[in-house]
Amino acid sequence: MENIINITDFMTGIKSENDVTSAVFDAMLKCKSVKNPVLVFPKGVYHFWPDKAFEKHYFISNNDHGLKRIAFPVIDMENLTIDGGGSEFMFHGRMTPFVIDNSRNITIKNLSIDYDRPFFSQGEIVAAGQEYVDIKISKEEYPYKVAKDNIIFYSHNWESYRLFNLLEYDPKTGAPAHTIGDEHMRNREVSVEELPGNVVRFKSKFRKIHNPGNIMAILHEERLNPGIFSDASENISIEKVTIYHVGAMGGIFQNTKDVTIKNLDIKLREGTKRMVSAGADAMHFVNCLGKIYIDGCTFQNQFDDPLNVHGIYTTISRIISEDTIEVEYMHFQQTGIRIYHPGDNINFIDRTSLLSYDSAKIKEVIIVNQKFTRIVFEKPLPGSVKIGDAIENVSRMPDLIVRNCRAGNNRARGFLITTPGNVLIENNIFYPGGAAIKISGDANYWFESGAVRNVTIRGNTFKDCNYGGWGKATIDIDPEIKNPEESNGFYHSNIRIEENTFETFDNALLWAHSVDGLSFRNNNIKTTQTYKPFRNVKASVCLNACRNVDLSGNIIDGKIITSFDEVKPL
Amino acid sequence: MENIINITDFMTGIKSENDVTSAVFDAMLKCKSVKNPVLVFPKGVYHFWPDKAFEKHYFISNNDHGLKRIAFPVIDMENLTIDGGGSEFMFHGRMTPFVIDNSRNITIKNLSIDYDRPFFSQGEIVAAGQEYVDIKISKEEYPYKVAKDNIIFYSHNWESYRLFNLLEYDPKTGAPAHTIGDEHMRNREVSVEELPGNVVRFKSKFRKIHNPGNIMAILHEERLNPGIFSDASENISIEKVTIYHVGAMGGIFQNTKDVTIKNLDIKLREGTKRMVSAGADAMHFVNCLGKIYIDGCTFQNQFDDPLNVHGIYTTISRIISEDTIEVEYMHFQQTGIRIYHPGDNINFIDRTSLLSYDSAKIKEVIIVNQKFTRIVFEKPLPGSVKIGDAIENVSRMPDLIVRNCRAGNNRARGFLITTPGNVLIENNIFYPGGAAIKISGDANYWFESGAVRNVTIRGNTFKDCNYGGWGKATIDIDPEIKNPEESNGFYHSNIRIEENTFETFDNALLWAHSVDGLSFRNNNIKTTQTYKPFRNVKASVCLNACRNVDLSGNIIDGKIITSFDEVKPL
Repeated sequence: MENIINITDFMTGIKSENDVTSAVFDAMLKCKSVKNPVLVFPKGVYHFWPDKAFEKHYFISNNDHGLKRIAFPVIDMENLTIDGGGSEFMFHGRMTPFVIDNSRNITIKNLSIDYDRPFFSQGEIVAAGQEYVDIKISKEEYPYKVAKDNIIFYSHNWESYRLFNLLEYDPKTGAPAHTIGDEHMRNREVSVEELPGNVVRFKSKFRKIHNPGNIMAILHEERLNPGIFSDASENISIEKVTIYHVGAMGGIFQNTKDVTIKNLDIKLREGTKRMVSAGADAMHFVNCLGKIYIDGCTFQNQFDDPLNVHGIYTTISRIISEDTIEVEYMHFQQTGIRIYHPGDNINFIDRTSLLSYDSAKIKEVIIVNQKFTRIVFEKPLPGSVKIGDAIENVSRMPDLIVRNCRAGNNRARGFLITTPGNVLIENNIFYPGGAAIKISGDANYWFESGAVRNVTIRGNTFKDCNYGGWGKATIDIDPEIKNPEESNGFYHSNIRIEENTFETFDNALLWAHSVDGLSFRNNNIKTTQTYKPFRNVKASVCLNACRNVDLSGNIIDGKIITSFDEVKPL
Repeated sequence: MENIINITDFMTGIKSENDVTSAVFDAMLKCKSVKNPVLVFPKGVYHFWPDKAFEKHYFISNNDHGLKRIAFPVIDMENLTIDGGGSEFMFHGRMTPFVIDNSRNITIKNLSIDYDRPFFSQGEIVAAGQEYVDIKISKEEYPYKVAKDNIIFYSHNWESYRLFNLLEYDPKTGAPAHTIGDEHMRNREVSVEELPGNVVRFKSKFRKIHNPGNIMAILHEERLNPGIFSDASENISIEKVTIYHVGAMGGIFQNTKDVTIKNLDIKLREGTKRMVSAGADAMHFVNCLGKIYIDGCTFQNQFDDPLNVHGIYTTISRIISEDTIEVEYMHFQQTGIRIYHPGDNINFIDRTSLLSYDSAKIKEVIIVNQKFTRIVFEKPLPGSVKIGDAIENVSRMPDLIVRNCRAGNNRARGFLITTPGNVLIENNIFYPGGAAIKISGDANYWFESGAVRNVTIRGNTFKDCNYGGWGKATIDIDPEIKNPEESNGFYHSNIRIEENTFETFDNALLWAHSVDGLSFRNNNIKTTQTYKPFRNVKASVCLNACRNVDLSGNIIDGKIITSFDEVKPL
């Protein structure tokens, strides 16, 4: 068949241990010349180096922008399938495996992604105090050098000069250690000293005294290269893909309509001693539209949340004329993302209450720079619009279904859901270090929109979540509004948490703020002794400024309960 | 007149000390909506900050690529005049004043450019030894801090962490000190210590012991923001512009056809104590075409050459098929420049002799990344083409006229000329720290092409050039060929140096390699005692592998001479 492009036809003279990046580039050019191309790889191991990879500058939401070297540049293409045939794609250095840009009907399947030298390092904690931690680091697995009080981690073609995060793992659980939280090093005074025996002493003011015998993961890479990045595309399907490691997010989709993710695993390779899979979130969706469908995936050991679906709030920095405003992107990893398009509807938001007070339709968008964009509307602005208010794009918020997934052993939370689309979270198993489900929204720090309108969480199992400390409860509904009880409206609405199983060492099940229509019904709760409880919450269910609440039919350790006051502490 | 756009119409509510960047952006949008727009500024001082400047990623030859904030983005425009009306444009932070991209018939005139805090620092040398130099630096004028053995220079919106170069100036001459040369710090071990009284000690292995009382300029900025950058444009005119400071080159033109530069001064402001005007070359032209005309300019105190006109050699990294090669960009500040275009003719070059052995016409260009580009030719490749050879684009090499200019007091050389077009250099005055005219070409380090075919240098005055040490002679024709006498051809041809005046403390007037057709005729040479001579050359005119040479009619100190052997040492 003319549309089947076999990579081996482009590998004349290339051995299995050689760089196939140019061969893939050739094959991708060929794919551009046929209809409905299918690029196939006979099962094997294929190696990629960045030197001859295609390059383009991208702003990638919640990652770091820059010139990216790309193994598979799926740019301005349609009806393309890339079938790895069960192959392993091994990357050597700073490069992004897949970019999907301005493309339609793209399928990527049957392959795995790994890197020879990961973009984190790790070692055993051999001693620790309040102001130091000594880590024994293998120079073979995680090459490094110490110079002028700094540690430089490196590979054959990159060096990392910055320390972002230290995170302690318990090798018995393969997960972040109990109650451990973050040691953010980014803006902290730190000095590094090399001790005998491949031991490195990190001197700083630590949040706690770390535990000798545990493993310390050291994150020293910006979020440069996600595994799969999609922008301005439509109908994207990822199937049977395993990501053993990637330096940034596993998959980041922005401005993309209709995404299907089936049997995508982000997890450690069996038998490895590595503690970190992806260097950031597993799956992240920003201002997407249509439907996101995720089924049968494992998201494990990534260095941030398994799933985050949200929009972006920008703030009004200037009112230019009666129909034109200038907006500012507020978070440094959101700048440059093309959120707004002619024809989109936006809401104007009060940043204290987070409530929308008016809406408008976009006529024209003028991008000034990554921080500032001008928006011209179809009609004159409402008189109530003022500088400092936020806006959100309500035309680019997707429906979401996530089922049959496993998510845990990671730093931070489980699924972060902030979309007004229809959301169904069912039959998943959660075991993250933080809250399993976080429904937030804020226009003051992360600037992640927006309010949910219809969320069903049912048939899931929550297994001893929130042991690491990232979250107020297993399900944490916490839009960042200072005094939600003083608002005239409710931020979120219609959240149903039903028929789930909670196995929990901790009494904090649900924390909810500013919800109209909240049910926590018919859930089966079993107490465990897996970890020592460390939270001191007023009740297992804490509500503030919520109405139309149904807390009926829940069972704790076999006993039907009628009020969560009865079970405090759980 | 509808086509006259006055900036004041966009400055409602903006005071003279405010940022006009957004107002200029508004006015530029307006210019796009009218025919033959003229953007006028009433005479005054206008301030620009980068925060709200237009932004785009550019590869800029011989500067450093990246996202640039741009005050005047002249992109996809034609028939535009920007008339500053004699105004001063004052920039605050990292931004590029003018970008001209894919535009035609553009005039920029009647304005000056300066920066509040320059991208270099300086101070008086108060003590020095072979392994240290102590510099007294004003923290008010050149803010800095010392931390962990490093010095960080900064302004209110930028910080520089790297040291690139130290250069000693003689405050009596306002020029680089006699015989001083470069202290390149980029890849050198250096540590920095703060001493009392705003004195900073730089510890390193210095090339020489520096002179207390002299001024040390410290370059700590990459070449991020040139004053005027033009790419892929045509018929560009710059008139009556003064650049008092810019962090990178004054003007860099690449892929641009027909450029006229009249009365453009790059020089220090009267009364300033600053020693550096532009942080790099004054004017630089790469793979331009048509005619470059430069008249009545002053290029003074810039940190590199006043003028450089050249092409780029790339090397053949792979022969892909009978009509397709992959080429590699070799110099890190040339990568990403779009040198090749369908229809262009290229020459194949042997990298030992630098001689062309065949040519071909380009059919298609496929850019892989900034380092590698694929070129498809109209016809199959000549059989002699081999990996490692160089190619040069002979369709994109301009004619050049430079007259009535003054160039000197700068680091490095005077005019660097490597173009096969017709070149006329007349009635200029030179006083650079290095060779006044350098005609080189090399495919092994700088990768700057190409051979000259018709150069006239007449009626110029060379005033005590080459005191700093950058060059073998006042006129230095030195293509980098190891053994030019072993080649079958000559690299350069037809160079006439006639009726010039040389005032010189030094006996090295002309050094020439591999020229067919060289005259050094009717020049008037006057010896001076301005500096102590420090070169030890065999003769005032040194030739190697040259033929068709005419050295007649020259006068030294009023005496006609017939041979330069008579006057050694001069």
